[in-house]
Amino acid sequence: MIPKNHPRYQSLLSRDKIVNAYKSGILADAGMIAHGRGEAFDYLIGEKTTNTAEKTIETAAAALILAKDPVISVNGNTAALVPEHVVNLAGILNAKLEINLFYRTPERVKAVWNVLKDHGAEKILGTENEDFKHVKGLNGPRSNVSPEGIYNADVVLVPLEDGDRTEALVNAGKFVIAIDLNPLSRTSKTASLTIVDNIIRTMPCLIDKVNKLKNKDPEELNKLLDNFDNIDNLKESLKVMLNSIENFE
Amino acid sequence: MIPKNHPRYQSLLSRDKIVNAYKSGILADAGMIAHGRGEAFDYLIGEKTTNTAEKTIETAAAALILAKDPVISVNGNTAALVPEHVVNLAGILNAKLEINLFYRTPERVKAVWNVLKDHGAEKILGTENEDFKHVKGLNGPRSNVSPEGIYNADVVLVPLEDGDRTEALVNAGKFVIAIDLNPLSRTSKTASLTIVDNIIRTMPCLIDKVNKLKNKDPEELNKLLDNFDNIDNLKESLKVMLNSIENFE
Repeated sequence: MIPKNHPRYQSLLSRDKIVNAYKSGILADAGMIAHGRGEAFDYLIGEKTTNTAEKTIETAAAALILAKDPVISVNGNTAALVPEHVVNLAGILNAKLEINLFYRTPERVKAVWNVLKDHGAEKILGTENEDFKHVKGLNGPRSNVSPEGIYNADVVLVPLEDGDRTEALVNAGKFVIAIDLNPLSRTSKTASLTIVDNIIRTMPCLIDKVNKLKNKDPEELNKLLDNFDNIDNLKESLKVMLNSIENFE
Repeated sequence: MIPKNHPRYQSLLSRDKIVNAYKSGILADAGMIAHGRGEAFDYLIGEKTTNTAEKTIETAAAALILAKDPVISVNGNTAALVPEHVVNLAGILNAKLEINLFYRTPERVKAVWNVLKDHGAEKILGTENEDFKHVKGLNGPRSNVSPEGIYNADVVLVPLEDGDRTEALVNAGKFVIAIDLNPLSRTSKTASLTIVDNIIRTMPCLIDKVNKLKNKDPEELNKLLDNFDNIDNLKESLKVMLNSIENFE
């Protein structure tokens, strides 16, 4: 029981969710360690959504609204931390959900599927029964994507994705939206748009932005995308981290 | 099997050791996540011992050689990653080993004890059979220290320690040497001397420095300590991290 007034309540709650997900088979070992890496970078941005991240989330909302065939990719950490928001966002956008695990086993796929179903997901792609297509530039089971899902998608939201896969999806011509607390990672640099923020804050904010923008003129939404440069965006987040390091003492 | 020529071989090997230690009951959940946090900061210093860290390790060696009653505190992550070096260093310094766990259970104490014994440790303090003394300013089982060990020590090496305990030990008048990859942590700021480096690189380097300095004139060793300022030292490590962020792209 973490007291709600604990200064790091949200962070400790996330940690609890991650540990429980690990114990229930949703997360691989690496997923638990990756969570710790995220904690360190979150610490450097002050454990809050920065102004620059909020603007980026708004641009991501525009891209998702404009998409013809948006897909939300779900890995173990995402299912552990924000299953309710993922299902909610898919509903609002009429986007598809696709399970996509780095350390893929039938058991883990089933565990993630259960979590999404428990939170009201209707259709879930990326399960074991599909006739997967391969993404060029990737090997092994990680190259598999659903023919109905990521394979045909124009915009893919990949929270907490690895560099190889991000690169392959970008090379396949997709607009890839990553959520990654490390602005220096290959994923961050390779994605079309990188939200440098904690997924537990990003998802509710993204839903809010989608709701606010969804009835806007597409031209206005396109303008947000035209004015966006991902490297400049990453540099803004790095500045925030630099400041938090420089303000030491 | 991680190929030895993998660019991140050491990091992946450490991760393997951490996962195995978690599965064998040496590590608590938090220990696995803490390892991930360390990975992030290690990444920012380029996954190598910086020049400033090496100088700090040399000063730590001097403090340990000059100590009347040095104690090496051992937690789960330390036992998982560098048990052989911990036992070796204790032997060279004639220092005591004391088990000191944040999430203390009799099972975990026994597991750490086994690892240290397997690596040749003779006497191990901090087990369940002792009549513990309390350190002022701490509550619960974490306030317990061995009367033969940390309670009477003048210099304590606490790899990967938390802020509360570091502060309490410093307040008790001890010279506390911390190994912490996060120069912004409360542990780093509170310790008498903080080595901002990965423990897997620090321990062999520390052993090397102790061997080189142990026959030197105590005056020379004292000079190293007189010239040391921990806040300046942390700022040097922060500069390295700043540079790695600024050299982005």
